[in-house]
Amino acid sequence: MSTFSSLDALTENFRSRRPIRAGSLIITVYGDAIAHRGGTVWLGSLINLLAPLGLNQRLIRTSIFRLTKENWLIADQVGRRSYYSLTGSGRRRFEKAFKRVYSDTNPEWNGHWMMVLLSQLTPSERKDLRQELEWQGFGSLAPTVMLHPQTDRAELQSTLQEQGVQDRVIVMDSLTEDTTASRAMRLQTRECWNLEKLSENYQHFLDQFRPLWNELKNSQEMTPEQSFMARTLLSHEFRRVLLRDPLLPEELLPADWEGRAARQLCSNLYKRLWRSAEEHLDMMLETAEGPLPKPNASFYKRYGGLT
Amino acid sequence: MSTFSSLDALTENFRSRRPIRAGSLIITVYGDAIAHRGGTVWLGSLINLLAPLGLNQRLIRTSIFRLTKENWLIADQVGRRSYYSLTGSGRRRFEKAFKRVYSDTNPEWNGHWMMVLLSQLTPSERKDLRQELEWQGFGSLAPTVMLHPQTDRAELQSTLQEQGVQDRVIVMDSLTEDTTASRAMRLQTRECWNLEKLSENYQHFLDQFRPLWNELKNSQEMTPEQSFMARTLLSHEFRRVLLRDPLLPEELLPADWEGRAARQLCSNLYKRLWRSAEEHLDMMLETAEGPLPKPNASFYKRYGGLT
Repeated sequence: MSTFSSLDALTENFRSRRPIRAGSLIITVYGDAIAHRGGTVWLGSLINLLAPLGLNQRLIRTSIFRLTKENWLIADQVGRRSYYSLTGSGRRRFEKAFKRVYSDTNPEWNGHWMMVLLSQLTPSERKDLRQELEWQGFGSLAPTVMLHPQTDRAELQSTLQEQGVQDRVIVMDSLTEDTTASRAMRLQTRECWNLEKLSENYQHFLDQFRPLWNELKNSQEMTPEQSFMARTLLSHEFRRVLLRDPLLPEELLPADWEGRAARQLCSNLYKRLWRSAEEHLDMMLETAEGPLPKPNASFYKRYGGLT
Repeated sequence: MSTFSSLDALTENFRSRRPIRAGSLIITVYGDAIAHRGGTVWLGSLINLLAPLGLNQRLIRTSIFRLTKENWLIADQVGRRSYYSLTGSGRRRFEKAFKRVYSDTNPEWNGHWMMVLLSQLTPSERKDLRQELEWQGFGSLAPTVMLHPQTDRAELQSTLQEQGVQDRVIVMDSLTEDTTASRAMRLQTRECWNLEKLSENYQHFLDQFRPLWNELKNSQEMTPEQSFMARTLLSHEFRRVLLRDPLLPEELLPADWEGRAARQLCSNLYKRLWRSAEEHLDMMLETAEGPLPKPNASFYKRYGGLT
């Protein structure tokens, strides 16, 4: 077995983080390794799978229990063993959350902005809604004006209703009128979304995973377990950076945008690692009926197509 | 000859203003009384016409000279007499400026907003552009965001070009998405345009001219000269209030909007006064060819139709 110092460094880095955030890693593993293979596992096999990443039994049980309470998972007792399956809504939530991770391009843009005016809210309502919209990827054009280049009106509407402000928030559908000010629009975008910070996050991701690519280029193949660990940490770190990425259309991003390079590296590494990692899952994970089913069709569409 | 104390009060009020702003009144008289009757007058007859309003010869000559310098008027000397005619561009500018005075409704609205983002400008450029856009009726949504419910893109573009900022100003065409927040939009409108101040101006106009309407209802007819003076002061004061009115669509205005009542009063008074006032113009004004031609067709369309 070859050793990969880059993988050791990634693993050590993850294991030494305090708090270790087991819940977040388990979400990654369910989304990246279990959802596309039936969605059900024996807890004991999951514990064994995650041990090399530094997650002990207690942490895993606590996290799984929380996901069950929040209706992502449902438990099934067979004999003395506990099996955990994705619920219907859990499956939909995973699909939605991971769709952006495995896409190979930024979404296409029709030039429309969704613009939200907060000036008729009280200061505390405004603060709450701003925070929520920032999480959803909205940028800030002015203290009372937020905007987003995608237009999922239904999601916004449900946010406004949850916060009880739907009749005091003005929503506009805005179209940038011409292309003469496109440079101004790119500068504006950089300010509205604080792209500097995001760009640093992507740079950090690149610094972490480029050494892995370099080693894989020149070395023997990884073992299935190494591949699983590398792929899991890759998906985990990429997902974490993406959480803060509003996924702006290409037209609005700088020419040398680090997010593009990061996605490219992630896609290349994933294509290199996936097959061997799936072998590890075949060996490690089990259901009440034996090994997991083969990956479903949508798995093979990750990053524009796994071959 | 009956006396009308309301007209005396209006005249006295105008005459006692310091500075008297002869240039502004002469613009009113050209737009209201001369443009639709050929556009040419002998200066001497204009001086006689305006004497009862307290404009002396020197003030009138200075104002006419300035309008000539600014290419609104062109002078023609016939013997010892000076005749002043509207230039082509002067005629167009008068038509544009007075169109809103004589309209009987606010413009129709298709729900679109023109939104202008100033955040990529330097503070001094921003200040200049804000001022200019406010003059054009734009409201202020935030320090760097201005908007207008009408969309004369060409006029905006020429403003941006004049100020040399067209490649750093972002223009959006925005559509309010739903009607559930329409109350919020009306409140927003009130803030963006400072409608309180404008409403006070209209209230002042109503206070000034309602007594005239009450007297006209109950008294004998005015003489042609009285009618001319009343109509001139009416158009002048209404035009001055309108200069500050962004002419927002009905949907966005309060139900009890004073601007509506003011336009109604102005329209009713004008319809009562116009015929007799035109008789005064027949008598007083002359061209090198004798009396003025009859009013043109567009004159009879004022306020939805003069009968």
